[in-house]
Amino acid sequence: MTGRERVAKVLEDRRFQNFIIAVIVFNATTLGMETSTSLMDGFGGLLHTLDHIALGIFVAELLAKFYAYRGGFFRDNWNVFDLLVVGIAVIPATGPFAVLRSLRVLRVLRLISVVPSMRKVVSGLLAAIPGMASIAALLALIIFVAGVMATKLFGVISPENFGDLGTSLFTLFQVMTGEAWPDIAKEIMVQAPMAWIFFVVYILVSSFAVLNLFIAVVVSGMEDELRQDIREEEAKQAETQAAANQEILDELRALRAELAELRQKAA
Amino acid sequence: MTGRERVAKVLEDRRFQNFIIAVIVFNATTLGMETSTSLMDGFGGLLHTLDHIALGIFVAELLAKFYAYRGGFFRDNWNVFDLLVVGIAVIPATGPFAVLRSLRVLRVLRLISVVPSMRKVVSGLLAAIPGMASIAALLALIIFVAGVMATKLFGVISPENFGDLGTSLFTLFQVMTGEAWPDIAKEIMVQAPMAWIFFVVYILVSSFAVLNLFIAVVVSGMEDELRQDIREEEAKQAETQAAANQEILDELRALRAELAELRQKAA
Amino acid sequence: MTGRERVAKVLEDRRFQNFIIAVIVFNATTLGMETSTSLMDGFGGLLHTLDHIALGIFVAELLAKFYAYRGGFFRDNWNVFDLLVVGIAVIPATGPFAVLRSLRVLRVLRLISVVPSMRKVVSGLLAAIPGMASIAALLALIIFVAGVMATKLFGVISPENFGDLGTSLFTLFQVMTGEAWPDIAKEIMVQAPMAWIFFVVYILVSSFAVLNLFIAVVVSGMEDELRQDIREEEAKQAETQAAANQEILDELRALRAELAELRQKAA
Amino acid sequence: MTGRERVAKVLEDRRFQNFIIAVIVFNATTLGMETSTSLMDGFGGLLHTLDHIALGIFVAELLAKFYAYRGGFFRDNWNVFDLLVVGIAVIPATGPFAVLRSLRVLRVLRLISVVPSMRKVVSGLLAAIPGMASIAALLALIIFVAGVMATKLFGVISPENFGDLGTSLFTLFQVMTGEAWPDIAKEIMVQAPMAWIFFVVYILVSSFAVLNLFIAVVVSGMEDELRQDIREEEAKQAETQAAANQEILDELRALRAELAELRQKAA
Repeated sequence: MTGRERVAKVLEDRRFQNFIIAVIVFNATTLGMETSTSLMDGFGGLLHTLDHIALGIFVAELLAKFYAYRGGFFRDNWNVFDLLVVGIAVIPATGPFAVLRSLRVLRVLRLISVVPSMRKVVSGLLAAIPGMASIAALLALIIFVAGVMATKLFGVISPENFGDLGTSLFTLFQVMTGEAWPDIAKEIMVQAPMAWIFFVVYILVSSFAVLNLFIAVVVSGMEDELRQDIREEEAKQAETQAAANQEILDELRALRAELAELRQKAA
Repeated sequence: MTGRERVAKVLEDRRFQNFIIAVIVFNATTLGMETSTSLMDGFGGLLHTLDHIALGIFVAELLAKFYAYRGGFFRDNWNVFDLLVVGIAVIPATGPFAVLRSLRVLRVLRLISVVPSMRKVVSGLLAAIPGMASIAALLALIIFVAGVMATKLFGVISPENFGDLGTSLFTLFQVMTGEAWPDIAKEIMVQAPMAWIFFVVYILVSSFAVLNLFIAVVVSGMEDELRQDIREEEAKQAETQAAANQEILDELRALRAELAELRQKAA
Repeated sequence: MTGRERVAKVLEDRRFQNFIIAVIVFNATTLGMETSTSLMDGFGGLLHTLDHIALGIFVAELLAKFYAYRGGFFRDNWNVFDLLVVGIAVIPATGPFAVLRSLRVLRVLRLISVVPSMRKVVSGLLAAIPGMASIAALLALIIFVAGVMATKLFGVISPENFGDLGTSLFTLFQVMTGEAWPDIAKEIMVQAPMAWIFFVVYILVSSFAVLNLFIAVVVSGMEDELRQDIREEEAKQAETQAAANQEILDELRALRAELAELRQKAA
Repeated sequence: MTGRERVAKVLEDRRFQNFIIAVIVFNATTLGMETSTSLMDGFGGLLHTLDHIALGIFVAELLAKFYAYRGGFFRDNWNVFDLLVVGIAVIPATGPFAVLRSLRVLRVLRLISVVPSMRKVVSGLLAAIPGMASIAALLALIIFVAGVMATKLFGVISPENFGDLGTSLFTLFQVMTGEAWPDIAKEIMVQAPMAWIFFVVYILVSSFAVLNLFIAVVVSGMEDELRQDIREEEAKQAETQAAANQEILDELRALRAELAELRQKAA
């Protein structure tokens, strides 16, 4: 057994994976504590050290994986995912990249790639996305068109909501989530009484599209389950039927044999 | 090959359609830019020219289609759709029609009629509508009745929400979307303590109707998918069964043949 | 043909029903107009007369139905429904019953009982209710229990939301519709920091129950549709299979006949 | 029949259970009345006495059950549930435990364990939970990660919403329920213009996860129903097919018998 194989064996060992899970959970708590200023004043140094130790373990694991699987490493998307969420912490988060420091917590998402059941769930969710692509594109198109229209129609009336395209798109996203749209609509209807047409049509169309976006997911979700059931049922029945057919055939063959015998006699 | 056929061939050419898609996307960006006052100050003229070029291309395409298909042109609803969204830009948008200028962006919706996948999605959505017609009518009826009642009951108490039928209908639509209804209800309950009955009943009834509106769509959506699966399964099984039956029949015929032979001998 | 039969024949005549539909729609418009004070000042008398004529027609229709069907009249729930919504208008709506005047518009709901397609939809909705009864009861129980708890826990802290049981139930219904609950929760959390537990638990439990209430309807809705499909498929296949079996049996019987013949010879 | 059996017989008697249901409903009303200060001033003592009588009956019932079933008592989770909700009232609710007094109303939830139909519903709901566990965990993970990020990114900008991890989690739960998120987002976007990315991504991801949480329940709910239907259909068909096969076999056996006879003759 070569060194690479031995390393691979360790990496795939249930206990090792449980250890990694433990480290992630532990790291999650330390990262959570880091958000408390009072705790940071007291144990800031300690928390950072613990965080770095956890980070070190993750890096070491990734290196080991890379050593064990070489090119195969990148073939598994979950490895790429791990590489990204861990890699963020290594980038010097200074100046314009300061926001990156807050992204370090994404590391906790490694739980998804380590815990098989969560891995399965997320794979399932991602599998549903292609089915929604077309409707999502349609929805984006609707929002864009509505955004341009709203900016032209209401941009002057309420600049804070429809001042420019960006603001309009944000406002329309908000309206789509059904948040405080009457206030916006009423404010505009003071000067443009017919504005309600735009809002009612937009809400009906967008929510109808969103609904169908959801249905696309539901259907794809249900199908797999139910199609499974149907298959099983059919298979079971087909089996029993096959057995019955066999029985009939046997009977026929026996009959034929006897007939042949009879011919012997007759001859 | 006549000229009309040649034109039709070009129009149906994948590359030509990709070109149209490119023009639409390009036009979408220019229309988006037109919403930015700063950009308009700088390149307003240019943007308008580009917009007119795009418009010209669309008009040319429509004319070509009309030349190629003649009467058949209007038989395809998508052509009518294109004609409308492009036609809007040609109408002189002045005075009372100023709003039409903002509708020019609807032209971008041509993406739906040009991209096959989106076309399929939208056809699907439209196909679900008849199934919802009756419930939609019921919902409209509920809102109308509730609107008249609310106007009579609360019109005097809170004119800004239920002053006249139009306002009431808008308010009830807003309540149906679950927006800020408690504020409205509480304001009225100060003077009409029993008003909560109206709101609770209305919310329960309308949301129940809306729910069933959605279900109608979900069901029609799922059915097509699942019925498909069931069909396939049944077909597969029917096939295998048919084969089995054939085998039995062959066996029987063979038996009969032998019997006939035997009779020959017996004779 | 007796007089009763003749009347029944007229009542069931398509044209008569269309006439009633026309009257309902016309009455709906007049009732809608009655909400506009300006119109009432101008044509108040006229509108009331038209309303009374419509009412008269409905009463006449009901009497005719009663004459034609006698006891059978009350066996059809739709007749009872019509009787109620029309009857409201006959009750003298004065003093405490003033609210009844606004209920006169319920008469428009007769559209449901007259238009067959709407009748079918509503029957469908009502058919789904028994399936939801248990969960609805559970939901009511949850709200009641939460209401009592909230009144005891938060009654003193925010009387306007949880002052007494009635107010609490209203507030919790509002929270269940997801309206402005954070404001309420935050106001209370100022004095009772742990209050978030109550709200989060309540929102999760109630929305989970509501979700299942909806699912109960969806499932019952889908089942009817899909079961139908499955049935049809199965039936189709069973038929083809039966035909195949018949063919086999015929073959066998023929075989047997020949065998019998052979025995004749052998004898 | 031993004493234990006699007690068990009484406990399982329909009339006894109806009596308990009556007591629960009665207790519910008294507990409801206790929330009204005016009623408490008048009949506080009476209400408490009635409450204690009800409590006494429940305790007696539990003791009887315990006497009748011994160890079996704890094997039925509903008994444990009853023990808990009744037990709460026995704990001296003073000082820090004062909140427990308000939990006494949980006793009313005993309706669930006593009324069979509600029992079935709740069992159904609980049965759906394992299927959602993984997605629920994923959702919790998403909220935690988003919470830590938000605290770091926006903690200084708007302390009242993202001051510390706890506050952030509460705010994000509120955003997930779609409550007043634009206000929060806009307040932050004043200083951190790119904050909209965080909110839009969070809303899309979380609502997509929640949606799939619901679907998991819907699917499990539908499956049971539909699988049932499919099974029944298949069973019915399998039966008819089996009958057909039998008929064929009988025919064959008869044929064979005759053939045997023929051979006798031939011999």
